[in-house]
Amino acid sequence: MKILRTIASAQKLTTQLRIKNKVIGFVPTMGYLHNGHLSLIREARKKADIVFVSIYVNPLQFAPNEDLSRYPRDFIRDEMLCRKGGVDYIFYPSNEMMYPEGYSTYAIVEKLTDGLEGKIRPGHFKGVTTIVLKLLNIVQPHFSVFGQKDAQQAAVISKMVRDLNVNTKIKVLQTVREADGLAMSSRNVYLTKEQREDAPFLYRALQFAKRKLELENYNKDIAFLHGQMSKLIKSRKTATKIDYISFNDYETLREISSLKNAKNSKILVSLAVRFGKVRLIDNIVIKR
Amino acid sequence: MKILRTIASAQKLTTQLRIKNKVIGFVPTMGYLHNGHLSLIREARKKADIVFVSIYVNPLQFAPNEDLSRYPRDFIRDEMLCRKGGVDYIFYPSNEMMYPEGYSTYAIVEKLTDGLEGKIRPGHFKGVTTIVLKLLNIVQPHFSVFGQKDAQQAAVISKMVRDLNVNTKIKVLQTVREADGLAMSSRNVYLTKEQREDAPFLYRALQFAKRKLELENYNKDIAFLHGQMSKLIKSRKTATKIDYISFNDYETLREISSLKNAKNSKILVSLAVRFGKVRLIDNIVIKR
Repeated sequence: MKILRTIASAQKLTTQLRIKNKVIGFVPTMGYLHNGHLSLIREARKKADIVFVSIYVNPLQFAPNEDLSRYPRDFIRDEMLCRKGGVDYIFYPSNEMMYPEGYSTYAIVEKLTDGLEGKIRPGHFKGVTTIVLKLLNIVQPHFSVFGQKDAQQAAVISKMVRDLNVNTKIKVLQTVREADGLAMSSRNVYLTKEQREDAPFLYRALQFAKRKLELENYNKDIAFLHGQMSKLIKSRKTATKIDYISFNDYETLREISSLKNAKNSKILVSLAVRFGKVRLIDNIVIKR
Repeated sequence: MKILRTIASAQKLTTQLRIKNKVIGFVPTMGYLHNGHLSLIREARKKADIVFVSIYVNPLQFAPNEDLSRYPRDFIRDEMLCRKGGVDYIFYPSNEMMYPEGYSTYAIVEKLTDGLEGKIRPGHFKGVTTIVLKLLNIVQPHFSVFGQKDAQQAAVISKMVRDLNVNTKIKVLQTVREADGLAMSSRNVYLTKEQREDAPFLYRALQFAKRKLELENYNKDIAFLHGQMSKLIKSRKTATKIDYISFNDYETLREISSLKNAKNSKILVSLAVRFGKVRLIDNIVIKR
């Protein structure tokens, strides 16, 4: 395994790999790898000749009031996990290299970024799409793997790649969870013991919606489901604020206000909840 | 020479050409080819194994009040000229293919697009950078050739490609002119006989600035130069409106207000002038 620290060295290498017709699989990350990332790396390892992982905490996707400086970092551990996972190259650039002075170009996806995370975190997706596009240009992968935990991100990146005709296939893999259902996230390390005990209720609330909509074929008021989910989460003392609980069309991310208009469609039920300073997101996909 | 009408066929081909290590040279155009385009094609032919030309009148770079519907088109003639010029592939897509329903992704370059054409034609550069990025992703060229006549466009595209780490080199070639100095442009066909006689005064005004700044080493008031150029152009009856005459740093496109701050630098002097409904642009680069 090699660590590449410059854009030029990475791009030169991937250009050569493309000439040699090697299939490049890519997993972009912000580091502090957990089992969710490792499942993405396993998928890339299965399908690619050469596996690239990028480790880069992208400042552009954090709003000024957000947790950039305290985002967890542990490159030594990440390196070890990548080596164990059969990664061939880690791309590990500096901020100065990715955003040199005078940097002024951005990729933006409109509409899909209006709601959900995009509404709560203005500018977040402009940062995500820009860094992902840059990384895809540098790594030139045949496919790139993302996790379903960041559902809106996955939808937005898929849309960008399709709209801009980027020569890369986007794969989205199921969320990996702890035994009690909590979605894996680098931010979970910040949870206190009490918050950690309450956090699995996010998934329980999502499962409640899935059960109602898939098994019981519930067909009435969305407000009722919303209310029940909200009640379940609020029953946990450390869940201090629900940013949103939302029902959206899986593809377009348009909000669903009535279940009658959502027949035979895939529905994304997603939520964002704060436990003190720690903000967790999760989602579930429901097939009608 | 082959004509490719689908994104998939073009991208599949260029992916194969990359594997075969063929150097791809690319000239994106809106068709209605003139000698300016042909000089770009000649340059590509000299340096590339495979020459791609795209012919696509990009609706996204026209503002609602602009001349999209009356933009000149003649594919049969363009095809003949490409064949003569040794082009290997013409990429000739439809609007439905380039911007399918629900299209919502854009590339934007901030700052460089604030002044000059960007100020007069809001949204223009968002359309230009988006289509060029799409075309670069489809054609996957090693280099792409642009004309200096659209100076701001060349600067903006160079910046985008650098910022987004697109694996393509941007070459900018000198403006090709008619014998009397008028810059070649597809829009010149719209000039009446009288307008056509007056149009070369744009270049004369630019040459006046160059002479003053390079040969006479003029070092005083920019307003004086501006006034003299303006007077020269307004002396022609068919020049109905000067949109701008501007002195800018060649790289950053920042406006230069004083020559004292522009020592040892390259200055872009550019202008846009309307002859009735026909709007012409031109520029000259001055080395101090």
